[in-house]
Amino acid sequence: MSAITKLRERLAELADLRAVQTLAGWDQLVMMPPGGAAERGHQIGTLARIAHEHATSPEIGEWLAELDDASCDELDRDIVRLARRDWERARRVPAELAAELSKAHSDGQESWQAARAADDFAAFAPALERNIELARAYGRCLDEEGRGVYQSLVDDFDFGLLTGELRRLFAELGSRLAPLVEEARDRPVPAKPAVPREVQRVAVEGIVRRLGVDAESWRLDTSTHPFSASMARTDQRMTTRYEDGGVESLLSSIHEFGHALYERQIAPELERTNLGTGTSMSVHESQSKLWENHVARHPAFAAVLAAELAAAGYEIDPGELHASMVAVEPSLIRVSADPLTYPLHIVLRFELELALIDGDLAVPDLPAAWRDGMKRLLGLEVPSDALGCLQDVHWSEGAFGYFPSYAMGCLIAAAMWEAIERDLGPQGEDLARGEVEPLKAWLAANVHRYGRRLDTVPLVERATGHGLEVEPFLRYVSPFAAVGS
Amino acid sequence: MSAITKLRERLAELADLRAVQTLAGWDQLVMMPPGGAAERGHQIGTLARIAHEHATSPEIGEWLAELDDASCDELDRDIVRLARRDWERARRVPAELAAELSKAHSDGQESWQAARAADDFAAFAPALERNIELARAYGRCLDEEGRGVYQSLVDDFDFGLLTGELRRLFAELGSRLAPLVEEARDRPVPAKPAVPREVQRVAVEGIVRRLGVDAESWRLDTSTHPFSASMARTDQRMTTRYEDGGVESLLSSIHEFGHALYERQIAPELERTNLGTGTSMSVHESQSKLWENHVARHPAFAAVLAAELAAAGYEIDPGELHASMVAVEPSLIRVSADPLTYPLHIVLRFELELALIDGDLAVPDLPAAWRDGMKRLLGLEVPSDALGCLQDVHWSEGAFGYFPSYAMGCLIAAAMWEAIERDLGPQGEDLARGEVEPLKAWLAANVHRYGRRLDTVPLVERATGHGLEVEPFLRYVSPFAAVGS
Repeated sequence: MSAITKLRERLAELADLRAVQTLAGWDQLVMMPPGGAAERGHQIGTLARIAHEHATSPEIGEWLAELDDASCDELDRDIVRLARRDWERARRVPAELAAELSKAHSDGQESWQAARAADDFAAFAPALERNIELARAYGRCLDEEGRGVYQSLVDDFDFGLLTGELRRLFAELGSRLAPLVEEARDRPVPAKPAVPREVQRVAVEGIVRRLGVDAESWRLDTSTHPFSASMARTDQRMTTRYEDGGVESLLSSIHEFGHALYERQIAPELERTNLGTGTSMSVHESQSKLWENHVARHPAFAAVLAAELAAAGYEIDPGELHASMVAVEPSLIRVSADPLTYPLHIVLRFELELALIDGDLAVPDLPAAWRDGMKRLLGLEVPSDALGCLQDVHWSEGAFGYFPSYAMGCLIAAAMWEAIERDLGPQGEDLARGEVEPLKAWLAANVHRYGRRLDTVPLVERATGHGLEVEPFLRYVSPFAAVGS
Repeated sequence: MSAITKLRERLAELADLRAVQTLAGWDQLVMMPPGGAAERGHQIGTLARIAHEHATSPEIGEWLAELDDASCDELDRDIVRLARRDWERARRVPAELAAELSKAHSDGQESWQAARAADDFAAFAPALERNIELARAYGRCLDEEGRGVYQSLVDDFDFGLLTGELRRLFAELGSRLAPLVEEARDRPVPAKPAVPREVQRVAVEGIVRRLGVDAESWRLDTSTHPFSASMARTDQRMTTRYEDGGVESLLSSIHEFGHALYERQIAPELERTNLGTGTSMSVHESQSKLWENHVARHPAFAAVLAAELAAAGYEIDPGELHASMVAVEPSLIRVSADPLTYPLHIVLRFELELALIDGDLAVPDLPAAWRDGMKRLLGLEVPSDALGCLQDVHWSEGAFGYFPSYAMGCLIAAAMWEAIERDLGPQGEDLARGEVEPLKAWLAANVHRYGRRLDTVPLVERATGHGLEVEPFLRYVSPFAAVGS
């Protein structure tokens, strides 16, 4: 067997193991009886350990050394390029450190849950301290070129997205959004519609069916926190949750549809290679945000949503529905933030985690820094750490460098939406009829089909014709500052 | 690390991999969108290959060689004994043969599906021929002691259950059941109750809840063919199916409960060892048959079933319900056979597969031999191969030596039931009230807790005080020959 054949066999095996890990995680959150939790932890741990062994074994290095780019076709060249990157990065982390990280993340999550429930930051501080230390050690292993520890952490989620670029974009977001938040302040917020759960359920099923979710390749279930999971290109699983009142379940289902559609439309030839997944967290989030912000929150699409709600037994005026989905109301909690203020929650987390990793902020000073930031960025007083710096799970799991992707997703989605309307014309007429096929085809051709063949920045540049920028997002949200006035 | 520690770590890893394979199979049959099938095949194949590599690696042999039984406690001695057996058996099969078997089984299933649909035995014959050849080659690899190829195949499902013993028991079953079938012939069969699906669903949920199925450690779903799957001692998944009319779903749910309860009650200390599953197919089937035949079909338990059906909106007299569940009616299809004639379907398959493997029956002669056997054992004319030798999937998958466990399950269940009534007294009063806790405790103490620590024969001897025999089963079914008279 040639080196490329052996390499591709190994990569197929790793793709299979990743799919099974995804299945084990999905099942745990959606189907598993609670009694299975401890054993499931062992099962996922064993899969992760075996996958790591198979991803870092020396023979991959031998195959890579044998491979001659000139004899490969274009697809194989991309496969080899990413295989080399992944193998080298994975091998830089010693097994002992990987084990320490895994243990600290599991302990951290437990400590955080208790601390949040008790609103007791001091109880979480030691675990956070430990996670930061280990994240620095991990980042140093990967920081071959001296670009900084935080950069190495970001690279895990968004390879090639530069910390300096994030600083520039987020500083601009902070200063440009501030006047819009000010403009919206004290405006009356439209009442949320009071949609019964059963109506939401029927409407959500109708809406995702319209978007192309069929029983052949998709599932829609419920879970505590909505998410999506891809077991295969033709096996996409989305979840949502139904709470009394509001249309959160509609927005979150369309958000998860955006994630799942990305995986669904990756080129079939990339399946069971190292390229057959979304390229980065930012681009993934851009796909969910594109459907959530630019389709679901489009004034024209409100007619479709209202029609599905009406078919399920709940009458609402489309204009009123739209207003309720875009109204600006600064809030303490990231996950329930409106589209305009949402990125400010991320700007705060980015500033703080960068300072924590770089040693410019000590753990005991985090709660005060959080309060200062919320005051500065959103004009809000934070009444407790549970509603402040203890609200998110990420740092307890050691996921530093992940938060930026949430805001980058908003920026990239807005830039892509402008590119879509430039290429396909204004989408209002199509969206009013629930016609999304041209949009899906554009996304397949310009974003989805590449899988990991293009990293975040080159992908965005090719799809939009521009680098990363805040202007399209600001053009998108500016009108919302006046909603309710 | 000591050799026993290293061995136990490896066995824990293998238990995790087996659990994940079980999950992937369960998901495929219960949850997966059909589009995921091709990739799921790859995923399961990769897991099986990795598990095989880890189960047969040379270091296990080194640890086993280092181990000194004297320094082990009793549990570790059993762990080592089974580890040695499993490792030696797995290593005797060359990788090329394992790959050929896997390919032939997959091809065989495909060929069988088409042949059955077209009622065309000749179309399936070449695949069957190939499966028989490979089964012989496989059996020869394992037949170290010259006990015959068929014995090696049985050992995979029921280690230590002897072919000679099966011949003796099944010959006796055939001759002793014949007059009972004759006695039942031409008696009017009681009408099947016409229970709507939704009533069945509510009644099934009520019944399994009574038996101890709770949301903490169990799931009940639907699938094309009912089965059960254990992801962990405290994560048991059962399925059933609801068809219009009949109470098949009640019987099959209680049958699957028997399988799942076995796994649920294995001693916790055996979890993540090589002993933490049911010991054999025969004993597993004895547990499902015990609940199906001796609890669900007990005249006293009919009151409980009738009460659950009534609570779900369907009134039926308990005596009438019981009669419908035990009536004897010879039929062509194994899976819908009544409790008296069921083992005769197995006797036929045992005789034929033994002759096929031993070379005493040629594949082209199978359909005629099937017809002769059905006439002799059940007095039935077989109108087509689709309703004859093409009805079961097993031989298409190369599963020779598996069928006996279905009948052995019936025999062992009857013997255990007599032991239970000897130890606990007649169960009628408890069953009339739906009280099954003493029964579950007896099964836990005498059968379930051992996991694989005892093989089929010693387990049965210890639990019942007798060797394998047909008398208890004959005492159980004899009264059914007169039902409807």
